Amino acid sequence: MPGMNPIDSALLTDLYQLTMLQTYFERGMRETAVFELFVRRLPPQRNFLIAAGLEQALDYLENLHFADDELRWLAECGHFGRGFIDELAALRFTGDVDAMPEGTVFFPEEPILRIVAPLPEAQFVETRLVNLLNFQTMIASKAARCVLAAPGRLLVDFGLRRAHGAEAGLLAARAAAIAGFAGTSVVLAGPRFGIPLYGTMAHSYVQAHDDEVAAFADFARTQSGPIVLLIDTYDTEAAAAKVARLAMRLRREGLRVDGVRLDSGDLADHARKVRRILDDAGHPEITIFASGNLDEWRLRALVSGGAPIDGFGVGTELVTSADYPSLDCAYKLQEYAGAARRKRSEGKATWPGRKQVYRLRGDGRGPAHDVLTLCEDAHAGEALLRPAMRAARRLAPRASIALMQARTAAGLAALPGRLRALEKAEPYEVRVADGLRHLAAEIDARTAAATAKDLAD
Amino acid sequence: MPGMNPIDSALLTDLYQLTMLQTYFERGMRETAVFELFVRRLPPQRNFLIAAGLEQALDYLENLHFADDELRWLAECGHFGRGFIDELAALRFTGDVDAMPEGTVFFPEEPILRIVAPLPEAQFVETRLVNLLNFQTMIASKAARCVLAAPGRLLVDFGLRRAHGAEAGLLAARAAAIAGFAGTSVVLAGPRFGIPLYGTMAHSYVQAHDDEVAAFADFARTQSGPIVLLIDTYDTEAAAAKVARLAMRLRREGLRVDGVRLDSGDLADHARKVRRILDDAGHPEITIFASGNLDEWRLRALVSGGAPIDGFGVGTELVTSADYPSLDCAYKLQEYAGAARRKRSEGKATWPGRKQVYRLRGDGRGPAHDVLTLCEDAHAGEALLRPAMRAARRLAPRASIALMQARTAAGLAALPGRLRALEKAEPYEVRVADGLRHLAAEIDARTAAATAKDLAD
Repeated sequence: MPGMNPIDSALLTDLYQLTMLQTYFERGMRETAVFELFVRRLPPQRNFLIAAGLEQALDYLENLHFADDELRWLAECGHFGRGFIDELAALRFTGDVDAMPEGTVFFPEEPILRIVAPLPEAQFVETRLVNLLNFQTMIASKAARCVLAAPGRLLVDFGLRRAHGAEAGLLAARAAAIAGFAGTSVVLAGPRFGIPLYGTMAHSYVQAHDDEVAAFADFARTQSGPIVLLIDTYDTEAAAAKVARLAMRLRREGLRVDGVRLDSGDLADHARKVRRILDDAGHPEITIFASGNLDEWRLRALVSGGAPIDGFGVGTELVTSADYPSLDCAYKLQEYAGAARRKRSEGKATWPGRKQVYRLRGDGRGPAHDVLTLCEDAHAGEALLRPAMRAARRLAPRASIALMQARTAAGLAALPGRLRALEKAEPYEVRVADGLRHLAAEIDARTAAATAKDLAD
Repeated sequence: MPGMNPIDSALLTDLYQLTMLQTYFERGMRETAVFELFVRRLPPQRNFLIAAGLEQALDYLENLHFADDELRWLAECGHFGRGFIDELAALRFTGDVDAMPEGTVFFPEEPILRIVAPLPEAQFVETRLVNLLNFQTMIASKAARCVLAAPGRLLVDFGLRRAHGAEAGLLAARAAAIAGFAGTSVVLAGPRFGIPLYGTMAHSYVQAHDDEVAAFADFARTQSGPIVLLIDTYDTEAAAAKVARLAMRLRREGLRVDGVRLDSGDLADHARKVRRILDDAGHPEITIFASGNLDEWRLRALVSGGAPIDGFGVGTELVTSADYPSLDCAYKLQEYAGAARRKRSEGKATWPGRKQVYRLRGDGRGPAHDVLTLCEDAHAGEALLRPAMRAARRLAPRASIALMQARTAAGLAALPGRLRALEKAEPYEVRVADGLRHLAAEIDARTAAATAKDLAD
């Protein structure tokens, strides 16, 4: 059955979601469950995270269903009974979602998404929700560091070929745009998300011509978009000199060379030499674009070193979040059938109950900080989790990339300055409200008593 | 147009592939091109790589076409002329593919795939081919290290939630199986690839019950598959004692507890204590399965330390190849219109021409090594690149996971012993044949002469 597309398939889940559901259905455990998704701790080189992926999470919840061929396979695989397959055939997501809007700056332990739904539904969606939100949040957070490292420069996602598969390539373009990237090379991100597309040419294009100048001239004469010529296939400075002479000839034909691209060697050194060659030949208008193993640290070094580079293509390091390619992202049961719940596994304990995050801007009376509290305990400040879906219906139209980009920019600007540095800084303060601490202690006492009773029985 | 699915869409490519094609078509550059895909260098902690992803690459080539809505968007996006859109509507892959079979052990600079096709086709497929082969090869290579680190143990892929999107989650399960994993938690990998499925239960399942023993008993009584109980939600050893007592009760009902799962804390210490508790209670048949931040190094430490653990769930570290989440994978033009080509960018020079890799087993006369040579220069040894597609037709049916798994196992067994260590070892020897060196030198001389002439003109 090769037709099952992982992006749409309800079978893109962990086996245990299905086995647990089988027990829930058989035991009639269908009361309301509250799950929250959060990141346990920051990766070593992060001072903040940027929430992203909510749009795809809501798409998933809206469309969740098992297709006929999927049900057939499940019925025959030997793990499940007939009655369970009928339950799955009817399974839809019917619940509520509250979430931080995409582009919101957030911190560890803060829920970015809350699901309230009958237990089987709320349980089942775990795997794909984590899969979607973990990835885009991770990439947006990495991309925001690139934006902070290269203020005012054009940043373009060039990572598709080294992204982990098709969906990662497409959604990395989206997450980077939310964080402030100007665009992407991924064509599909144009029609799907309205993200501006950028591109130059490949070395193979230059090599396919017997002559580098002919390759450049052919390209300039056949394109309607911007002309950015790749000049490092053989000898960067020699190619820059060729471009300078060619640009003069093309100008007489009414054509304009917009830029050159460097993709290897010492980018700062090549950029200075190429800038000089172009300027000396009377082409200050030709911009320099650079790519090749760039990350936020190399961007900062190039920019702060004064390299005359106007824009950067950032690829592998961005779309794989190469220094830390995952977040410690968890989706945990916080309440079932009206009672708050808490996981206490070593190093993985969670805060129980339905929670809200309030953000308080710093002022004369104290520094900026967040407060993590139970929903029922209202607090001063901006409430970060907002209603996104009620009874499986979206509450708002899709947010534009521009809006999410603006939210990220405002969130970064409002951060205490130390947290905008690439280096690890003293953490942002997230206060846990007393009511929440009391609830956690109460549940621990109850669980300990139950365990003692079990063992004594 | 939210219907464009990245896994099928011809728009899942870099913009420059389309702009280059526009020039190729307009200039009539449709002669035969030869591209080869290879890895430039090994990641820091790898002694070998395992080729994987060919099946999906061939699927892509077979199905390549632009859908009507995609063509409409391209026509309206402003980058392209009408004539070019018509060319794209007719674009199919018509060429030949030679490749290393999946599961083949290989080394840097060795092509694992060669495309021979008219230039526009061969160029266009670059982005997705690299995207597919880079990912699965990277994961299979990481998974093979896990297999070497935990010989004889059951290894299961548990990474879906932290994989980079849907396709990465599904294909990581496939790549891990090729490398020797026994199975995966990804349900879709069952119907799509015939990979055995494994699963236990989540902490939320235990938490949703008021009582841990009731949670275990309910699960055991409602499942038809294996029963593996998660025992670290509250107190691991207390839960092990509960399981021991419950297993006795269930046995009287004709039910069997197959295993327990540990997911936090010091796994070796918990495993020893839990083993003792189970054995003392007369349950040597209950196995111990462990998960939680495992990678090849932790697997080796647990196994060599004698921890009584029968199987492992390996997740995030595997499916993100966390220590190095990309390969330096390139797809380069080696010949066009009958003439060999060579990229010479700093640190990125390639070996020109159509190449073959021969593997020579070690014997009394010398060590095992590979020879990289031009196809026309036949050599002793096993030729690793084999015909996979001719005129866009597959030459063989899909290989089974079992066959590819056997190929990996044989390849690993035949490696010089030092390369099977987790630590970086003296590299495997890949000899470059004289004919190939001469061709590279010849092309360099020709290019240098052309550059000198250009600048003198």
